[in-house]
Amino acid sequence: MSEQEILARAFQEIVKTRRSIRLFDKVPVPEEVVRTALDLALLAPNSSNLQPWEFVWVRSTSKKEQLVQACFSQAAASTAAELIVCIARIDTWRRNCEDMKIQLKELANQGVRIPKAATHYYDKLVPMVYSQGPLGFWGVIKKLFVFFLGLKKPISREPSSISDMKIWATKSTALACENLMLSLRASGYDSCPLEGIDSKRIRKLLGLPGQVLIPMVIAIGKRRSDGVTLPRIRADKSWFVREV
Amino acid sequence: MSEQEILARAFQEIVKTRRSIRLFDKVPVPEEVVRTALDLALLAPNSSNLQPWEFVWVRSTSKKEQLVQACFSQAAASTAAELIVCIARIDTWRRNCEDMKIQLKELANQGVRIPKAATHYYDKLVPMVYSQGPLGFWGVIKKLFVFFLGLKKPISREPSSISDMKIWATKSTALACENLMLSLRASGYDSCPLEGIDSKRIRKLLGLPGQVLIPMVIAIGKRRSDGVTLPRIRADKSWFVREV
Repeated sequence: MSEQEILARAFQEIVKTRRSIRLFDKVPVPEEVVRTALDLALLAPNSSNLQPWEFVWVRSTSKKEQLVQACFSQAAASTAAELIVCIARIDTWRRNCEDMKIQLKELANQGVRIPKAATHYYDKLVPMVYSQGPLGFWGVIKKLFVFFLGLKKPISREPSSISDMKIWATKSTALACENLMLSLRASGYDSCPLEGIDSKRIRKLLGLPGQVLIPMVIAIGKRRSDGVTLPRIRADKSWFVREV
Repeated sequence: MSEQEILARAFQEIVKTRRSIRLFDKVPVPEEVVRTALDLALLAPNSSNLQPWEFVWVRSTSKKEQLVQACFSQAAASTAAELIVCIARIDTWRRNCEDMKIQLKELANQGVRIPKAATHYYDKLVPMVYSQGPLGFWGVIKKLFVFFLGLKKPISREPSSISDMKIWATKSTALACENLMLSLRASGYDSCPLEGIDSKRIRKLLGLPGQVLIPMVIAIGKRRSDGVTLPRIRADKSWFVREV
């Protein structure tokens, strides 16, 4: 088998054996396995490299207990060895944009060729595209402007509201979450992405501002033999994949 | 090396070598590679297995040309061998829920043990949780109800608006998109997730209803040696990963 075939088969095996696990065995997950999964999560592609994600690994016994309760004490949470709260933030892009500008400058100083478009992008375009102004007012202006300009030529339409920003941040965070879950599987461990959660209680528990989103809590552990409750079911592929 | 180590290393290699490619070589991508990536995309975890995703592989020359224009003719799109429009739908969950009910019944008839909770979930809970009513009215009622109930005990708070539904559908679709891009990498091919797109023009081109979202267009091809424009940059990990 060629190197490439090994990679391709490995990936198929990882994806095909990943299931959402509802009951975990009472065995610990090596710290290294979780750390690797988190590291690989941060390598996901993300919008304009503004990294709107955050992952809180809840390890203290008392916080974990409260988190389990905020996940309705469902077995996937209560039997999990580890729990990670996955957060999408619409309030960190300015900070991360500034960091990009600094890092691009440092790279340039080291002799790396940085395209002018990249510098311009973070200096000028990012603030324009992602600012929505107080109460989203600037977003409304942008939407109007874009509507008229868009009559004549293609134009980028989102994000033009706080709501768009939430979609935007959730998207990149989900890409990272998938890396995280697949990494656990690749290491022989399992996960369950929990969306049935009390986001308000979790925000309070972690001291998060009201506007952050919690796309999911990822429960982590080793699957119990009865940890998969249903066979894998998908609707007919023709409903989801079209060629035109 | 154990089987598990091979999988773990393979996954690390796939994630670490995946980069957003801005210039593709002019070589075709085998149909099988794209089909496998699409198949693996559909195996991503997703909310309540309601599969709110859709992938349109745009192959006809004229449609592809128009799609490239709707991506502002950026090089990642114009040099791509293939383009897939990734769609998040908030209008297909009822259909998919009905399908789940049918498939669960079929499995039960075949002697598979289906937990009562699963049947109940699709019969009763899904319609209650995901319906937002005309103009989101039912969502407002739910939000009020949930607010008061949530004072006493943990309760699931989302989705309780059309906006929440958009976040919800985008999340599952992004999980699938990551599978798709990683699968291409595992097969030795590359991708670029494009968000700088004219969603309105793409909806029109594909005859999609106004309410569907287009989280990204994935450009596919083989990377050119100068296809990566910047070194991989991330802000300090401590900004994104916390332990509590």
